[in-house]
Amino acid sequence: MTSTRVINFGAGPSALPQSVLEKAAEGLLNFESTGIGIGEISHRSKEFSAFLARTESLIRSQLNVPPTHHIIFTQGGGTGQFSAVVYNMLARHRLLHPDLRDDQRTLDYVLTGSWSKKAHEEAIRLGGANVHVAVDARSYSKDGKAFDNIPPHAEYTFSRDPAMIYYCDNETVDGVQFSSDSNAPTFFPFELLKRRANSALLPLVADYSSSFMSRPIPYLAEHAVIFAGAQKNLGPAGLTIVIMRQDCIVDVDVAAKLGAAPVPKMIAYNTLADSKSIYNTPPVIPIYIAGLVLERMAELGGLTYFEDLNKRKAEKVYAAVRAGEEGGIFQSKVQQGSGSWMNVVFNILGEGAEERFLAGAEKEGMKGLKGHRLVGGIRASLYNAITAQDVDKLVAYIDKFIDDEGNKIPS
Amino acid sequence: MTSTRVINFGAGPSALPQSVLEKAAEGLLNFESTGIGIGEISHRSKEFSAFLARTESLIRSQLNVPPTHHIIFTQGGGTGQFSAVVYNMLARHRLLHPDLRDDQRTLDYVLTGSWSKKAHEEAIRLGGANVHVAVDARSYSKDGKAFDNIPPHAEYTFSRDPAMIYYCDNETVDGVQFSSDSNAPTFFPFELLKRRANSALLPLVADYSSSFMSRPIPYLAEHAVIFAGAQKNLGPAGLTIVIMRQDCIVDVDVAAKLGAAPVPKMIAYNTLADSKSIYNTPPVIPIYIAGLVLERMAELGGLTYFEDLNKRKAEKVYAAVRAGEEGGIFQSKVQQGSGSWMNVVFNILGEGAEERFLAGAEKEGMKGLKGHRLVGGIRASLYNAITAQDVDKLVAYIDKFIDDEGNKIPS
Repeated sequence: MTSTRVINFGAGPSALPQSVLEKAAEGLLNFESTGIGIGEISHRSKEFSAFLARTESLIRSQLNVPPTHHIIFTQGGGTGQFSAVVYNMLARHRLLHPDLRDDQRTLDYVLTGSWSKKAHEEAIRLGGANVHVAVDARSYSKDGKAFDNIPPHAEYTFSRDPAMIYYCDNETVDGVQFSSDSNAPTFFPFELLKRRANSALLPLVADYSSSFMSRPIPYLAEHAVIFAGAQKNLGPAGLTIVIMRQDCIVDVDVAAKLGAAPVPKMIAYNTLADSKSIYNTPPVIPIYIAGLVLERMAELGGLTYFEDLNKRKAEKVYAAVRAGEEGGIFQSKVQQGSGSWMNVVFNILGEGAEERFLAGAEKEGMKGLKGHRLVGGIRASLYNAITAQDVDKLVAYIDKFIDDEGNKIPS
Repeated sequence: MTSTRVINFGAGPSALPQSVLEKAAEGLLNFESTGIGIGEISHRSKEFSAFLARTESLIRSQLNVPPTHHIIFTQGGGTGQFSAVVYNMLARHRLLHPDLRDDQRTLDYVLTGSWSKKAHEEAIRLGGANVHVAVDARSYSKDGKAFDNIPPHAEYTFSRDPAMIYYCDNETVDGVQFSSDSNAPTFFPFELLKRRANSALLPLVADYSSSFMSRPIPYLAEHAVIFAGAQKNLGPAGLTIVIMRQDCIVDVDVAAKLGAAPVPKMIAYNTLADSKSIYNTPPVIPIYIAGLVLERMAELGGLTYFEDLNKRKAEKVYAAVRAGEEGGIFQSKVQQGSGSWMNVVFNILGEGAEERFLAGAEKEGMKGLKGHRLVGGIRASLYNAITAQDVDKLVAYIDKFIDDEGNKIPS
């Protein structure tokens, strides 16, 4: 059964470690010798409570989450959080500044790709505040239209005392990501924000859906909220992790009495935090698989191990793409220094070449390389479960493809 | 591994058929010979799309859902839908009657237990309408406080042209359920509502979380919305099914322009319906397991088979409880005719007797019989995966317990 498994370079839901899946398969029938499958056990049982606590602590220890921050397991994906952060951060702002008018409350959005754009659109839909674009990366793109870069620090215009500053660490569709190197120009301008905030708590919110647990989160403690759908590095779809700082867990009903929008119970952070993620039945199986993934991560050496591995994987693929670009076969879609470690995107030039590339890859057992339907091209997603060997196989295939195509070009 | 499985009478997450779990365990590693596990495959792949369509059609055919109604797979559980129905039904009402003031819009709630009470509380939290209690079953209880009955039809006071009429078919905590027999006084007053509506479409909303797929849904076509968390008869936690009539899928953004509350994207019914449940990544593994459960249901004879089985199971357990009541050992918690087929609740009289009952059951491999933490006592949940043999074992245990306790009572 398992020998027929292919390499899944899909952008999510994405590959999971085979050892985890094998253990999960056993747990479906009998969870930790309880005689009850994980999908059947009560979420309030002592066995599941212990598992949930262990899973939380595996995230806390590996990401170095300070005690000021809660870690919550919920549902609804990144899209659910696009709404949740607006409601909860505006409720917080209402309690801090009850006398401001709605148009005196500002939400700052950093737009670097399709997902931050969607989050920004949701803030506009929900209303209740002035929605400001702190920077739009498209203005700094090669063609003035594409999300192909992380803009330089000088271009960000943040508001004075915003209710929220929002960014997306890794843009899965567009293949751009903030750097993890604090000296790089594509590092997020945390220091700039800290200086401006003048020791006040930053209302900084980050979507980490597609890079969560792939490497450490810089300035984690300065964040108000960090959220992530699990279905990239952490587990299957149907689970959302939210890390929230204590001051962002406010009584949304009191805020509503002061004029803030009422917050649906299931996305009110105080509901989720006060109940420790079990206000209602949580997505038990996705949590279980995520927990197994986290255990395996810890065994392998934790986030440092994966940071190092993911860096090397990305560098290898980018080098291969660059070679293709130099050979006139490929075209990178992202500006130098802005490329994602998780999703490497490029175009293949020449008629029918993209189809040839995909068909050939599939023949060698490599799937999921087709780019997002909105932007086309090729996308190789290199989440944690993709091994160095998987990447070597992809790179060898790319090298050979470049050779073969090169030979076709009339000299 | 599987020989150690116990009988799980828990109220949810609840027992799943072993054959389904065995198949799901294989699918975790290799979904339908794709070489990719179900937790890893793209929700937009042709293989998963086909599975999703098949799962939908298994619900449609077995429940006899007419083409006027969409079937949607989403996340957030019943609690998420408590909010969703208020937003979406008020948006619909806004478009039908744009000139009414908020206090001229009414939401009618039928209160028969803890879950309808929670839904009612959420409507009050969200505001934007006059929230009316059409009937409160506590007024008709033995002690004036407990949810122990389905009230008689004459006691319902519905509003004129409400934006929503809300009820919960089966109350998991309190063990009361509307009858499936249209001649019973505890049948929901559908005919009364139809007469009043005078051929207009009823804004009837039902929470079927704990009875979904256990028996046919009476007057299904008259419902505006029926929703259900999957974790009782259908599958694991993390999946919510919503059946919505076409006229309830409205453009919530247009309604918001007319003054309705903006609706978070993930709970806007037009987002879910227009994208056919894949606006964002759906909970793929829970959907997979629910699909396998539905396939097995169809093989066994469909809803008619389970209706008949569930009726017999409930009758046997109620008969045993009645015997215990006559012997002065048990006390039923629900009035005659209002008892749930899914959750049979009763108290055990005498000091330490409840603990003895639970400990003895556990020793014989029967778990999950402790009542809900809010009401205590015993609760035996008899969802679809509980077999006739499982019930026979429980009944034999109850009979023996009654005998043993009876012998302790000094004559």
